[in-house]
Parts: sequence; structure tokens; C-alpha cells
Amino acid sequence: MQKKANPDIKLLLEKLSGLINKVLDKFLPEAGYPKILYKAMRYSLLAGGKRLRPALCLLSAKACGLTYNDAMPFAAAIEMIHTYSLIHDDLPAMDNDDFRRGMPTSHKKFSEAVAILAGDALLTKAFELMMSCANNKKIKKENIIIAACKVAKASGSEGMIGGQIVDIESEKKKVSKQTLKYLHEHKTGALITASIMAGVMLAGADKRISGLFRQFGEKIGLAFQIADDILDVAGDEKKLGKKAGKDAKAGKATYPGLYGLEESRRIAEKLVDDAIEILTKIKKKTGELSQVAKFIISRAY
Amino acid sequence: MQKKANPDIKLLLEKLSGLINKVLDKFLPEAGYPKILYKAMRYSLLAGGKRLRPALCLLSAKACGLTYNDAMPFAAAIEMIHTYSLIHDDLPAMDNDDFRRGMPTSHKKFSEAVAILAGDALLTKAFELMMSCANNKKIKKENIIIAACKVAKASGSEGMIGGQIVDIESEKKKVSKQTLKYLHEHKTGALITASIMAGVMLAGADKRISGLFRQFGEKIGLAFQIADDILDVAGDEKKLGKKAGKDAKAGKATYPGLYGLEESRRIAEKLVDDAIEILTKIKKKTGELSQVAKFIISRAY
Repeated sequence: MQKKANPDIKLLLEKLSGLINKVLDKFLPEAGYPKILYKAMRYSLLAGGKRLRPALCLLSAKACGLTYNDAMPFAAAIEMIHTYSLIHDDLPAMDNDDFRRGMPTSHKKFSEAVAILAGDALLTKAFELMMSCANNKKIKKENIIIAACKVAKASGSEGMIGGQIVDIESEKKKVSKQTLKYLHEHKTGALITASIMAGVMLAGADKRISGLFRQFGEKIGLAFQIADDILDVAGDEKKLGKKAGKDAKAGKATYPGLYGLEESRRIAEKLVDDAIEILTKIKKKTGELSQVAKFIISRAY
Repeated sequence: MQKKANPDIKLLLEKLSGLINKVLDKFLPEAGYPKILYKAMRYSLLAGGKRLRPALCLLSAKACGLTYNDAMPFAAAIEMIHTYSLIHDDLPAMDNDDFRRGMPTSHKKFSEAVAILAGDALLTKAFELMMSCANNKKIKKENIIIAACKVAKASGSEGMIGGQIVDIESEKKKVSKQTLKYLHEHKTGALITASIMAGVMLAGADKRISGLFRQFGEKIGLAFQIADDILDVAGDEKKLGKKAGKDAKAGKATYPGLYGLEESRRIAEKLVDDAIEILTKIKKKTGELSQVAKFIISRAY
């Protein structure tokens, strides 16, 4: 597999990121009241980040016949959910992180109370935003409900939060390969898969197509988290915006910890190869998604 | 105004509470995985409570022509949102409460991390549950989206969370009557109003009717919080399940603190009288709602 990401895909991701940032800025206006709450929500939401999840949502929606604009409320909502999960993960009672993306974490910048509430408010606003899709006559109301339900499931006790709990419970314990896979698939994979599925479901794709997109999402979701694990071991602190080697120090279960660095890279590559293979069966314009799949693990070299 | 609650309404509320508890128990099965997460979600959700919000949702839906069953997913979802807000409010970084409803609070019983995540998971599950209404062919998809959007707005930065932030910011400060009203209307009133509106919107009531129900909700929402303030000053600890006089100790802004006990009671009574007056304009079977309005402040004597 080609290990360097296609430069065109980097440009496309930057373009999408620009679009998404504009929408996020609009949906959470600086003048919002109470001031401190909006300030905290915006501080974490507009702190950068690759905007990978919303980009996946927009690209899958486009592959299924919608425009970026059609899927934008869901794309922005998913980024809000991702951001809330980071704010809560960073709290002293959880990972107790002082920095995120090179900036003080929310509870360091504001207070623990404000950080908890800013996270809660982002999660809540996300669902309000998804519902706003109903203003778009092109999208069936039923599809909005199905897509929002998928996002809720993927973010909740059977998805991301379930993974986060198992992550906390696994700290400083020897975990099995099976538990590690569960953890990664839930903590990170579920929302990545849901980002793709939201776009596909909004477009009203049929069961066969949806199923293939889901498989694609599951593969790249796991590959993404393995690449993240690898970056934490082998990455450059400046690039990460946080301390490298933090996972090992915190006794976190990781792929390099359980499989070694080289085998972890091989597993991630295989997942991306399989994901791209699945895309070929969809017979839609999925070239960009296939490039994003490659981009996801290009960070791990 | 008659100050004692009608005994029949107590029986009705108990009956509704029983129905709601059954549904909550079913939606969050004991066998859910990860175990500790489901245990914590169930611990707080099934710890009792008056189930006032879901009861209001069911009664308004019924007044507008739906059955209790039709509105049940929203009623249960709203109770989940209420419970999540209590779990997060009780955290050390917020109100730092050790007891709730006579039992140790979630972070005392489990851990801060589990309490934060159990709250997050309840909020997320609530939206999943609301979306499940789409399985009911009697209810228009559009109405589900409008109702869910209302609940999201009422729970978020422009509603409950907004009120909670202002509450924290007002601690140990002298607040104006206007700020106190904002605080109560947002922290407590918004979700109570949304409970009623969800039932009304699911039923597809017209603008005039919706508007009247909203006014009714706003009145009893504020009356409810004033009654709560009064209870904290004048209430019986055993009945409260938590220490009385806690608000004053924490330097919280309250109606008795700003208006005195008797004037607070008078304001609450006037709100309920006005609320009942509004109901008469609706010309639907709202007798039970009017009894619930009286019940809400009967606790304050």
C-alpha cells in the first residue's frame, strides 16, 4: 500500500474543514448567552482539529447523491459530539489532561463546572442541529430520524460512552486482544462509522449500500484508532499538541502495547486495504473516501 | 386557592409514575453492557422521584388526543434528561452533594468518572428513545422532529444548561429579581414547559393551542421552582431526602431569600391561578393538568 497520503486529499480535507468551521461558528455565535458557556463551547469546538468525522459525513452523503450543504447540519452536529467527548475525557476525574491541541483543556482554561456544562451543551446542541435538517425539503423526515438515531446509538452507552467506560476500567490492567478491539471499536470506531452512515442514511440509500458503507466505516474507524495509538508511541509532540507516550504512562491499553509497533502498522494497513476493497463494491463515486481511508493511517508513519 | 392537593390527582400521578418506571426499566435493561455504566444509569434513574415531567408530557398528549403509550418514549426520554441533569448537578465541581432522594449521589456510590459518563449516556439515550417514536405510525415524523427539537432547546445552552451556568455564577452574589427569574425559568422551567410541549407537538396541535399550552407550562414551571425554594427553607428533611436549608448555606439565589416566605407563596399561587385560567381557554380535557398545577405548589405548605 502507498503510505503517503495523496496531496489532493489533504487539500480537499482542508477545504471541507473550512466549510465546517464556518457553519460551527455560525451555529454557536460569539454573542450567545450565557457568555461564559458560549465562550467555553466555542473555545473547544473552534480549536482546530482535522474535522475528519464531519468530512466523512459530507463525502458519504455526496457519494449517495446529496450536496455538502444537505448533510452539513449532521456533519457539524457530529463534530460537536466529538468535541464534547474530548472535553469530558480530559476532566480530572477521567484522563486528567492539561493540554489538548496545544492549548489548555477546557477545565484548565475555565473551570471544571464550566467544562462539564460546555460538554453537556455541545451534546444537546448537536441533536437540535440534526433536527434542523427538517427545514430541507429535499430530505425525507424519516431519514433524518433514522440518521439521528444512528448517531445517538453510536455516541451512547452502546457506542462511544460504552468504550470510554471499558477504557477507564482497563487502565493499568492486562487486557485481552478482544477487549482492546471492543474498546477501540466503541470509543472511536462507532462515531466514525456513524459519521459515514449519517450521510448515507440522509440520502436514503438502500440496505445493501448502507451495509457496505457500514463495513467500510468499521474498518477505517478501527484503523484510525490504531494509527492514533501508534502516533502516541512514535509521534512528534509538536504535531500531537499533547505529550507523546502518555497512553503507556497512564497504563492505557493500546495496539502497540499488545501487538508491537510493526504488527500494529500491518493490522491498520490491512484494515484500510479491506475498507477500500469494500468501496469498490458500492459502485458509486467513492474515490475521495478511499483517499481519506489512506490518509487516516498515513499519520502513523 | 385551595391549598391541599386533590387526593385523586395523587393517585393518578402514582399510576402514571408506575407506567413510566416500567418503561424506564425496560429501556435500560439490567443486563446492559458495560455493566457498571448500566448499573449507574439505572441507579439514578430508578431511584424514585415524582416523575412530574413525564406525567405532564403524558397528560398533555392525552388532552390533545394521543394515548399515554403514544407519548411514552418522549415522557421516558425527558425523565432521563432530568436525571442526567441531577447527576451532573450533584458532582463535586458543581453542587457537591452527597445525597439525593435519601441515597448517596452517583459519584459517591460509583466514582466521578462513572457519574459523568452515566449522565452523558442518559442524555444520549434520551434522544435515541425520542427517535424510536418513528415506529408508531400514528405519529407524523415531522411532529417527532419538532418535539425533539423543542426538548433539545429546552435542555441546552438556551434552556436548562444556560440556567445552571447562571446559577453557579450567581452563588454568593446578590442577584436581581430579574436574574433570579431568568435562572428559575431556564434551570427548571424550560424542561417542564418542554415536557408539556412535547406531548402537544407530537399530537400535532395547532399554533393557538400550542401557544396556550406553552404559557401554561411557563407559569407552572416557575411555580414549581419557587415551591422547591420554599421547601428548602421550610421543608422537612426526611421528606426532602437531602438537607434542608442547603440553598441558603450554599449562597444560592432563591425566592424566599429575595422576597421572603409569604410573598414567595403568594407569587407561586398567583402563577398557578393564572396557569389554570389559561387552561380554560384551551377547551380540551385539561382537568387533570389543572389538578397537577395545584399539586405542584401544595408541597410548599
